[in-house]
Amino acid sequence: MHSRTFAKGHGTENDFVLLVDRDARESLTDDQVRWICDRRAGIGADGILRAVAGRHIPEWSGDPDSWFMDYRNADGSIAEMCGNGVRVFVRHLVDEGLVVGPTVPVGTRAGLRMTEVLPDGRIRVEMGPARVALEDVRVLTADHRDLVAVPVDVGNPHAVSFVSDPSAIDLRDAPTWYPAEAFPAGVNAEFVSSRGPRHLEMRVFERGSGETRSCGTGTVAAAAAWHHRHHDGAVERAPAAGAVVYRVDVPGGTVEVELGERTYLTGPAVIVARGELLVPAGLDA
Amino acid sequence: MHSRTFAKGHGTENDFVLLVDRDARESLTDDQVRWICDRRAGIGADGILRAVAGRHIPEWSGDPDSWFMDYRNADGSIAEMCGNGVRVFVRHLVDEGLVVGPTVPVGTRAGLRMTEVLPDGRIRVEMGPARVALEDVRVLTADHRDLVAVPVDVGNPHAVSFVSDPSAIDLRDAPTWYPAEAFPAGVNAEFVSSRGPRHLEMRVFERGSGETRSCGTGTVAAAAAWHHRHHDGAVERAPAAGAVVYRVDVPGGTVEVELGERTYLTGPAVIVARGELLVPAGLDA
Repeated sequence: MHSRTFAKGHGTENDFVLLVDRDARESLTDDQVRWICDRRAGIGADGILRAVAGRHIPEWSGDPDSWFMDYRNADGSIAEMCGNGVRVFVRHLVDEGLVVGPTVPVGTRAGLRMTEVLPDGRIRVEMGPARVALEDVRVLTADHRDLVAVPVDVGNPHAVSFVSDPSAIDLRDAPTWYPAEAFPAGVNAEFVSSRGPRHLEMRVFERGSGETRSCGTGTVAAAAAWHHRHHDGAVERAPAAGAVVYRVDVPGGTVEVELGERTYLTGPAVIVARGELLVPAGLDA
Repeated sequence: MHSRTFAKGHGTENDFVLLVDRDARESLTDDQVRWICDRRAGIGADGILRAVAGRHIPEWSGDPDSWFMDYRNADGSIAEMCGNGVRVFVRHLVDEGLVVGPTVPVGTRAGLRMTEVLPDGRIRVEMGPARVALEDVRVLTADHRDLVAVPVDVGNPHAVSFVSDPSAIDLRDAPTWYPAEAFPAGVNAEFVSSRGPRHLEMRVFERGSGETRSCGTGTVAAAAAWHHRHHDGAVERAPAAGAVVYRVDVPGGTVEVELGERTYLTGPAVIVARGELLVPAGLDA
């Protein structure tokens, strides 16, 4: 057994274990990731945010001294980026005095992300562009219903369906789609309705995870798809007019999505505990 | 916000947050319990094991200096006893040097429980008697199947069904039973098959929780029901012959159940983390 410093936090209830290891001195095996993220045998989390200096990540070509968010899914696999995770990552670095805000650059496998700690404690993150394919709608089947789904690419694939009441859909089984080859790498499915002008409600089924309390790129996809559907792609045609801001309510809380030449996601980030993990001997690397 | 020392551990993946507060100096409100046990907004656990001196528990009439396990369900309600929890409770007290083993008495709302830390690290706990009502079988409906269910009282109510393959049952929906008044306070439903002589496999649906990875009293109920069904109640008639030992495999691991004049549950207990909880300002008591 060995012990290892950790923290746990969440952004709209998308939760993470944080491991700060600037000099990459400690190993992190897939088995360790799976154990840490196991909600009963370990601490439990949707993923792990490992904080290291960029120089230790072979695929990082940016500033070797900048903090890099090495994100692992609960199954041990690597993910490029996580919109909720990067807020929690920045919150922890600020709380521990490891960076000085309000502007904090974060290296990710999807590139450098500029973040900003707002006076109210929320964190604003620059996200990738959202590409809405309204002309290319698919059929998504969820809870025995065939729904129209708008494909949206936010660095990862999404299928956004507008429904009258997201809360009424049974999401215990994974949605399917037609044609099957529409999403060869799988898709995150968002179920979205309007609660008022530029105010959406959303539930999400994440590929590989099932229904989650929140999905950062999903909220961006939902706002972008809704806006394009109802405003004929006005964001793309008139970026100079300034950002369009959507409020998106998810089961785990509320975020804001800014659509414009760039997209931004703003939301809360909370650290709930810190201490030491007691890693079982069988998982010593 | 205030911080509070905690640990997290599990027994066959029935998991708990541990709060040691011998002199009962810190409050623990229902809202705090729910937050701590929330798997995404908090740390996450099936329940909380608060360790206090017996003198601080009004309903405890035993030794005022003995450790008392003040058990709370994840919803904030009080439970009398938890067979997996008491092992984790003892493991933590031993690891922190707060008791000296191998024999550790623990006060619970179901009375004093003697426990023993075994040389292999497992912990053996005296459980209440198991009362099997073979003559009073009920109909339990799970996954659209009607099953014969044997009522067993282990301090809390159980309904044990023998099936060919517990893993084949869909337990996402709560079982129902007939007649409805058979279990007025609800029931924990066990689905049990044999893997060999005195070796059982079990899944469990706990009232108020859904399917869990393990249930200590449920394993005792399963072993007692199986033994009575196949040995005509021989345990009750011949206690002097010594204990009958069953191995019970649950999704979260393996335990041993001794049936005799008294019943005992033996199984693992693991502490996975310790540190401080950062309790949000809104939950300050």
